[in-house]
Amino acid sequence: MKPKINLDPLRGFRDILAPDSEELTALATTFKRLARRHGYREVIPPTLERFELFALKSGEEIRRSMYVFRDKAGREVAMRPEATASIARIYLRHLRAQPKPVRLYYVVNCFRYEEPQYARYREFYQAGVELIGEQSPTGDIEVAALLYRFYEKIGMNKHIEVLAGTTGVYRALFEKYRVPEEKQDHILHLMDKKEYDKARLELESVNNELAEIASKLWDIGDIDTEGRFREAHSLLESVEPRAAEALEHLRFFAESLANLGAKIRTDLSFARGLAYYTGIIFEVKVPGFPVSIAGGGRYDTLIELYGGEHMPATGFAIGLDRTLIAAKEVGIDLRLEPEPAPRVAIVYLERGVLPYAIRVQGMLVEWGMEASIYGEKKLGRLLPRLAEEGYRYAVILGKREAERGVAAVRDLSTRRQVEVSLEKLPLTLLGWA
Amino acid sequence: MKPKINLDPLRGFRDILAPDSEELTALATTFKRLARRHGYREVIPPTLERFELFALKSGEEIRRSMYVFRDKAGREVAMRPEATASIARIYLRHLRAQPKPVRLYYVVNCFRYEEPQYARYREFYQAGVELIGEQSPTGDIEVAALLYRFYEKIGMNKHIEVLAGTTGVYRALFEKYRVPEEKQDHILHLMDKKEYDKARLELESVNNELAEIASKLWDIGDIDTEGRFREAHSLLESVEPRAAEALEHLRFFAESLANLGAKIRTDLSFARGLAYYTGIIFEVKVPGFPVSIAGGGRYDTLIELYGGEHMPATGFAIGLDRTLIAAKEVGIDLRLEPEPAPRVAIVYLERGVLPYAIRVQGMLVEWGMEASIYGEKKLGRLLPRLAEEGYRYAVILGKREAERGVAAVRDLSTRRQVEVSLEKLPLTLLGWA
Repeated sequence: MKPKINLDPLRGFRDILAPDSEELTALATTFKRLARRHGYREVIPPTLERFELFALKSGEEIRRSMYVFRDKAGREVAMRPEATASIARIYLRHLRAQPKPVRLYYVVNCFRYEEPQYARYREFYQAGVELIGEQSPTGDIEVAALLYRFYEKIGMNKHIEVLAGTTGVYRALFEKYRVPEEKQDHILHLMDKKEYDKARLELESVNNELAEIASKLWDIGDIDTEGRFREAHSLLESVEPRAAEALEHLRFFAESLANLGAKIRTDLSFARGLAYYTGIIFEVKVPGFPVSIAGGGRYDTLIELYGGEHMPATGFAIGLDRTLIAAKEVGIDLRLEPEPAPRVAIVYLERGVLPYAIRVQGMLVEWGMEASIYGEKKLGRLLPRLAEEGYRYAVILGKREAERGVAAVRDLSTRRQVEVSLEKLPLTLLGWA
Repeated sequence: MKPKINLDPLRGFRDILAPDSEELTALATTFKRLARRHGYREVIPPTLERFELFALKSGEEIRRSMYVFRDKAGREVAMRPEATASIARIYLRHLRAQPKPVRLYYVVNCFRYEEPQYARYREFYQAGVELIGEQSPTGDIEVAALLYRFYEKIGMNKHIEVLAGTTGVYRALFEKYRVPEEKQDHILHLMDKKEYDKARLELESVNNELAEIASKLWDIGDIDTEGRFREAHSLLESVEPRAAEALEHLRFFAESLANLGAKIRTDLSFARGLAYYTGIIFEVKVPGFPVSIAGGGRYDTLIELYGGEHMPATGFAIGLDRTLIAAKEVGIDLRLEPEPAPRVAIVYLERGVLPYAIRVQGMLVEWGMEASIYGEKKLGRLLPRLAEEGYRYAVILGKREAERGVAAVRDLSTRRQVEVSLEKLPLTLLGWA
């Protein structure tokens, strides 16, 4: 029959089925437990926010790709493209008086109306933390260590590489040369897009010396060797001490992560798409995988911009979908929660026995087994099918069994069948009796 | 300073903070584990769907209160007001060829533009299952048993009451008297609103005899006694055998749940707001709490309506927010996952010690403790504050400790301080050494 409605999900959206759905859930659960143990507390922000919340500092690309509409009361609302703006708002609304630092974590879905591509969806899942009230570089190191430990926990840490940079060097230079904030954001946007020629032109329109310094920093690239660190440092020290300090922070950040066992490289030409960054920024890459799987950075002015006090803050977001895809792509077997075992099918032979079957199911579930109910089917056809579907045992219940408080247990691979009392049933199925 | 943006969430939306956020998560996790053990597999549907998916059978009230808008490509899209329509679509799109029954579960947020009221939000959380390909009443009993077991698991089963009814009796009568489907849905909608006079008028406009029978059923109300069951049964038996059969199903359903220990009552005047119901329907109530906390029912025609084969199906959704609020309201202490213990604050005395502090944190987290990092603060002010915040121990790390691979452990209640090696640290904090 021809479907009467369009059965496909909307373009760029997904129907996530098992086992993918369960892997995504296991990843989120692992993250939540880890964040909690690091002293972070959960926040569940609303999916819809006023458009203005994101319009201010989400960056040119995200602003263009938001799901924005007017609700029935005429409010201009947006489905969140990312979580940090909401968490900053929630901090100001509810948690401002709390002793610092405030540690928050979240697992959310986000929405961006972008052209669907490999590992890029219009609805995607992010898990992240925000650390509010902790200075650079200590705060950055704390969150990045948690991020690295997450990848360690799921067995992926040997396959990732952390790329770090600093918006702080540029913000300090921009301030010295009085580059207007919108232009600052636009130049960082161009750096993110690797359009350094255009970025240089923008800088030249403000100050030639500034353009010269920035270009030199882009040319230096990484500060992973002492020589290049020295070169960049002496260049900045003579121009703007706060830029030199931002560079030192980046080096301490990189050293600390390397200390944990992370493969890390720095890049002075690196920028990120969100316009609120002010200091250390970082991304997690899997060599050969086309997009980064996590990212974050420092945003020391966002809370003030929303009307709060000056407040240092940093955080990261893990792309949960991308992490799963990248792991599969490069052949890593993630350490996620195992399936409950053994799988048991409870087969009742007539309708009147169903309440007894449900009682048996409750017992097996309490013992940690997976137990599904099947009823009123032809056993000759049902049992081979259950074996094919991966069930280990069938517990067959007829009127006779119900009356006597017993069960017929059939091993679906050996086809052996035994009768056991309800008391002995769980131990029999677990292989302990 | 005056906030520059509006810090409130949108009307009817919530910022969910700890501990509420963590309770919501614990409830979802408990549900997922239980559903999985009953043989259900997770589905994560997209948040946005084509409006037409819901327009067909979501019912008059929900249709009016949906968040509907046009995306950038001009598609009319809706944020889901409930999950069953999406799951039915996903079944048809991906799982049609699977052996029956197909068992699916989900945990999602839903959106309805309604006037905010006590325990009614514009974004709310639902956990549910759909059982596709299992007949009434066995399928209904299977899902309702799982629902009851969920409330048992969280320690709430003695405080709930299941209210059950059957749309099946009315659908069978409506078909016999050839009531057009839209009118059927409207009459059930009026029954849901307890507007029986209006419902009777609608029925009379089709057939007086039908209006008479329906009114009698509403007057009979519950079939919890044998007498009233007999009365309703003999009334229906003479008119339409399938209506009488639907009544028998309801009785078997109620008996089976009572068997599990559920407090259950039946009501023949009961209907639910969604227009896709065709058989047994049920809700979970907490006496004294103004709204039901879970609900579900049979929808045997929805999949056919979407263009599939005729396929019996049933399911339920738990209102997770409502369940939490109701539990608090009536003073039930839900059995949710305990907090990790003990809580430890790791205090480092100078920046250079941070990498050592992070190493110590990693170790304690692996041992299941909650360990947060605090740095470069005045100890005299920090330690009393940490005690106030509920930390049991401070692990104090200076340069001397880092060099020697030890830690100073201070019990924040007794103020006693000891030095221990890193190897002994976890056991000391756990009180085992």
